[in-house]
Amino acid sequence: MTKPTILVTNDDGINAPGIRALIDVMAEIGDVIVVAPDSPQSAMGHAITINSTLYLNKVSAENAVITEYACSGTPVDCVKLAVNEILKKKPDLCVSGVNHGSNSSINVIYSGTMSAAVEAGIEGIPAIGFSLLDYAWNADFDTIKPFIKKITLEVLTKKLPEGTVLNVNFPKLKHDDIKGIKICRQAKAIWMEKFDKRQTPYGKDYYWLTGEFVNQDKGEDTDEWALAHGYISVVPVQFDLTAHHAIQQLNSWDL
Amino acid sequence: MTKPTILVTNDDGINAPGIRALIDVMAEIGDVIVVAPDSPQSAMGHAITINSTLYLNKVSAENAVITEYACSGTPVDCVKLAVNEILKKKPDLCVSGVNHGSNSSINVIYSGTMSAAVEAGIEGIPAIGFSLLDYAWNADFDTIKPFIKKITLEVLTKKLPEGTVLNVNFPKLKHDDIKGIKICRQAKAIWMEKFDKRQTPYGKDYYWLTGEFVNQDKGEDTDEWALAHGYISVVPVQFDLTAHHAIQQLNSWDL
Repeated sequence: MTKPTILVTNDDGINAPGIRALIDVMAEIGDVIVVAPDSPQSAMGHAITINSTLYLNKVSAENAVITEYACSGTPVDCVKLAVNEILKKKPDLCVSGVNHGSNSSINVIYSGTMSAAVEAGIEGIPAIGFSLLDYAWNADFDTIKPFIKKITLEVLTKKLPEGTVLNVNFPKLKHDDIKGIKICRQAKAIWMEKFDKRQTPYGKDYYWLTGEFVNQDKGEDTDEWALAHGYISVVPVQFDLTAHHAIQQLNSWDL
Repeated sequence: MTKPTILVTNDDGINAPGIRALIDVMAEIGDVIVVAPDSPQSAMGHAITINSTLYLNKVSAENAVITEYACSGTPVDCVKLAVNEILKKKPDLCVSGVNHGSNSSINVIYSGTMSAAVEAGIEGIPAIGFSLLDYAWNADFDTIKPFIKKITLEVLTKKLPEGTVLNVNFPKLKHDDIKGIKICRQAKAIWMEKFDKRQTPYGKDYYWLTGEFVNQDKGEDTDEWALAHGYISVVPVQFDLTAHHAIQQLNSWDL
């Protein structure tokens, strides 16, 4: 079996410890190419850059085993540039992360990490986003490496269901305390925003967006439940946003 | 019946003709408040501003009938600020647009206009995104005003199915050539990227993202089909991204 080509990206930036850990694992599995943002791009969602220019800087040494590019754009821009400008053909897999912090439940929608995976999925590339429930820069990524490898090999072997990518979140636990891996649905949870209103030194009001995460979902089949009970959560994510179940009801409207 | 409170936003910026047309229609239906970006925010997806400050500027006159705020953030920031800082209670409806250009099929994922509507939906507010298939600044929004009113009144009367918002796209046609309104699913279409590679005056390569829209979906129940055949497309959009149909298959994996 030939080695798979694996595109690695993230949203915390190319120098984040999370992506370095992900690169380590992928280097054991395939030929790795890295195209990641040159600065933090958290919470960029599925943003793309259309009103300004994009730069790509090769940041790895000429004789390096792994080729790395830092990109001035968003995570989604990174995937588009990798596939269309850098690689001669579609990679066999795209992995994004490991994100410093959770992308479970509704966070999937705001996450640059997951949007990169979704973009790869849209382009027909199997894709996985990985996130660890620890915002610390020096979070323990070593513990989760064996699980990342296991999930990635399974994706390469079994193939993902059509039109889906995986959203994988790891609890912040020691290896022996992790109970296993659970396939889940996205919990119905929201952010209760709270804006921190301040004044500039010049007397003008401004705001910082802050908030509290509230899980309104009591289901035991959700990613939030799994993570709270010591499991790694795996949610299949789709990019057909149609609420198919709602079509019949809307067809009864007087339009 | 008391007048509904309607929050109006968009991604083309508060001065775009599209949002001015939408405000006109909403003023006939309810009490309108406008919170929209102070500059174009197209293709921002579900981005939120967490690494910089947010400004809100009241731009309407003190005695104006409609209160308007220009916001320095993304469309999603606008909705969050409107609901949490400006309004005393949740509005009865949030409408976003009218976007200058299509948000049909896969464009729903990149669109700031639709992400604003989705954000309102997440917060439990009925929401509709409107888009016209004409990128021109002086596009003809008058033609579609009666349809916007009809759809909005129907949403207020019949209530949207839970967990869904509407993605409404209008073909660029004269009133008499519009055949009607069709409830649709999101077409399986993609953008084939093509990067326009240039050099700065200082010899450094840079890229502009461009692309060609390719509809790979031959179904006659899609938004693309409807629009190409003279219909207004209405797609119910959900923010539970779980690919529920894929869960059974993934449970058979060796994880």
